[in-house]
Amino acid sequence: MPILRAETLRKISEEIFKAYGAPAEEARLVSESLVEANLCGHDSHGVIRIIQYVKAIERGALKPGAEIEIVRETPSSALIRGNWGFGQVVARRAMELAIGKAEENSVSVVCAYDLYHIGRLADYTALAAERGMVGVAMVNSTPTVAPYGGRERLLSTAPISYAFPTGEESMFLLDIATSVCAEGKVRVSLHRGERLPDGLIIDKDGHPSTDPADLYEGGALLPLGGDLVGYKGFGLGLAVEVLAGILSGAGCAYEEGKVGNGVFFEVINIDDFMPVEEFKERIDALIRRIKSSKLRPGFTEILIPGELELRTRRVRRDEGIYIPERTWREITEIAEKRDVRLADILSRGC
Amino acid sequence: MPILRAETLRKISEEIFKAYGAPAEEARLVSESLVEANLCGHDSHGVIRIIQYVKAIERGALKPGAEIEIVRETPSSALIRGNWGFGQVVARRAMELAIGKAEENSVSVVCAYDLYHIGRLADYTALAAERGMVGVAMVNSTPTVAPYGGRERLLSTAPISYAFPTGEESMFLLDIATSVCAEGKVRVSLHRGERLPDGLIIDKDGHPSTDPADLYEGGALLPLGGDLVGYKGFGLGLAVEVLAGILSGAGCAYEEGKVGNGVFFEVINIDDFMPVEEFKERIDALIRRIKSSKLRPGFTEILIPGELELRTRRVRRDEGIYIPERTWREITEIAEKRDVRLADILSRGC
Repeated sequence: MPILRAETLRKISEEIFKAYGAPAEEARLVSESLVEANLCGHDSHGVIRIIQYVKAIERGALKPGAEIEIVRETPSSALIRGNWGFGQVVARRAMELAIGKAEENSVSVVCAYDLYHIGRLADYTALAAERGMVGVAMVNSTPTVAPYGGRERLLSTAPISYAFPTGEESMFLLDIATSVCAEGKVRVSLHRGERLPDGLIIDKDGHPSTDPADLYEGGALLPLGGDLVGYKGFGLGLAVEVLAGILSGAGCAYEEGKVGNGVFFEVINIDDFMPVEEFKERIDALIRRIKSSKLRPGFTEILIPGELELRTRRVRRDEGIYIPERTWREITEIAEKRDVRLADILSRGC
Repeated sequence: MPILRAETLRKISEEIFKAYGAPAEEARLVSESLVEANLCGHDSHGVIRIIQYVKAIERGALKPGAEIEIVRETPSSALIRGNWGFGQVVARRAMELAIGKAEENSVSVVCAYDLYHIGRLADYTALAAERGMVGVAMVNSTPTVAPYGGRERLLSTAPISYAFPTGEESMFLLDIATSVCAEGKVRVSLHRGERLPDGLIIDKDGHPSTDPADLYEGGALLPLGGDLVGYKGFGLGLAVEVLAGILSGAGCAYEEGKVGNGVFFEVINIDDFMPVEEFKERIDALIRRIKSSKLRPGFTEILIPGELELRTRRVRRDEGIYIPERTWREITEIAEKRDVRLADILSRGC
């Protein structure tokens, strides 16, 4: 049952979340976010997460329909407690609040804590860019990354996202871990039985390793920059930890029992600096000049942040999304447990 | 004439800038910033810059005493035109404005254009952290870095700085180029006749090189992440280019005739999220846990951003600052040209 259209996957995901107690609007938002990740090629953040989220609902770690509370607020800042609702629902609300505040007050920061996994940061920063503003996002989560020089997992992959509106060029949409790679990449190599390139992980004794299994036997991911300049990725990751873990009140990766994401969102209203149309013309010109650069041997083109995802999206929208056998089996089991009839959804061919 | 005390160097620098037309307060600010860089071990941003700045004054590219204009302003944002004044003077004013705005309005962004070289970013973000706030800074400048996959110099080293206040631990003060290294590092290797480690530069044809001369013969610096994940450093550098080059109105690195720094400063008032004392306790705890990590073979300790600079500062404050012969000779010539009596300053032993 491997290749499904995005609409079908969304419908399946929605029905499952509703069957597990999610209000319709929340089920829709979360499902859209997961399928969007699949469309963009980030399967580790796609419908495979239905399994994790449903388990979290069952053990009470994720509470569909939880009230979202604004615990502190000024005209240009807010602190939100998610009460363990869906990360996507709380984070979307946080970003919409930040956009509204930046519209009125030039710049805003909104942090959130006590919420589940929010998925890809680019989903939220893109909301700001679609409104002609700059979107910035950082999150922390559970520890998988060693500090530069250390061999314990004390930091999260601590991703950062920047989104900028463009004119004719596709949206500038950066979304990167500050570790040298995300954990999902190592897991894929493990499942495929492949070795890793040098410089991604260390084993439990702190020695460099190319065996993906070592990450899951006490090893750690390395910060961006590797042995040569890993203090840079480490420093950035630590800054994310401070903003998304401490300023948000969510807690740091190293703390006992850390779950969910700590969230730091920021929005800047371009119009308070220059007309947004002028900004778009200038960023288009920058992108065109960069893309027209003479190439290094071995490269065929230069890709702007977000461009690869957009291309994958076009292909998968037309050709469908491949779901691995094991993922599909587990989703089917979860659905059957609450009488969600996948066969009906599939036969409707939506 | 190689080793001088910080106070003596500051005095020499002040007198030279005054002799070349700088108002006393500007001469003091710029000199403090340059000597501070020497104290912290960043000699490439230290008094060696006196030579460059004086030449810029002579050809009219740098205008001491220039009026600083606020061309756009809201309660939490501002856009500043420096009219080609000293970067340090304009940038300090910009950061002070940002701090005042964040104090009143939780968050602020201040951008600046038409100003000369501002020196180290950490000087400015530290001002915010000293006031119990978060300081963020980005600048762009002339092009030295190739995009990921390209071989033309189209981006600047595009540094980013984050400063956070701490309690008992030393200030968290990150200040890193988003290229794999700064240009100064390559220049030092060139002068010493040493090879570079792999992964820092490419030659004019885009091939990896360890010969520092290749950078100055049409080559380029590589973005942070190298061949493996250089799209990450490239993406960050491009984001800096957009915020510090486009949003600021300063122009991008790739544009013909680009000079000076484009500046993006941001300040966040911690008190609007949590009591700053609580923030300090939490960041202290984070720093202590990270520093207590079990080490990798070959490492003797874990350093927090800013820690190395602080240690160097203590040593150089006590032992003095070494000035290379050539730098000292050129500074002496510049001084003599305007009758600044270095011998008098040195004999006063300040």
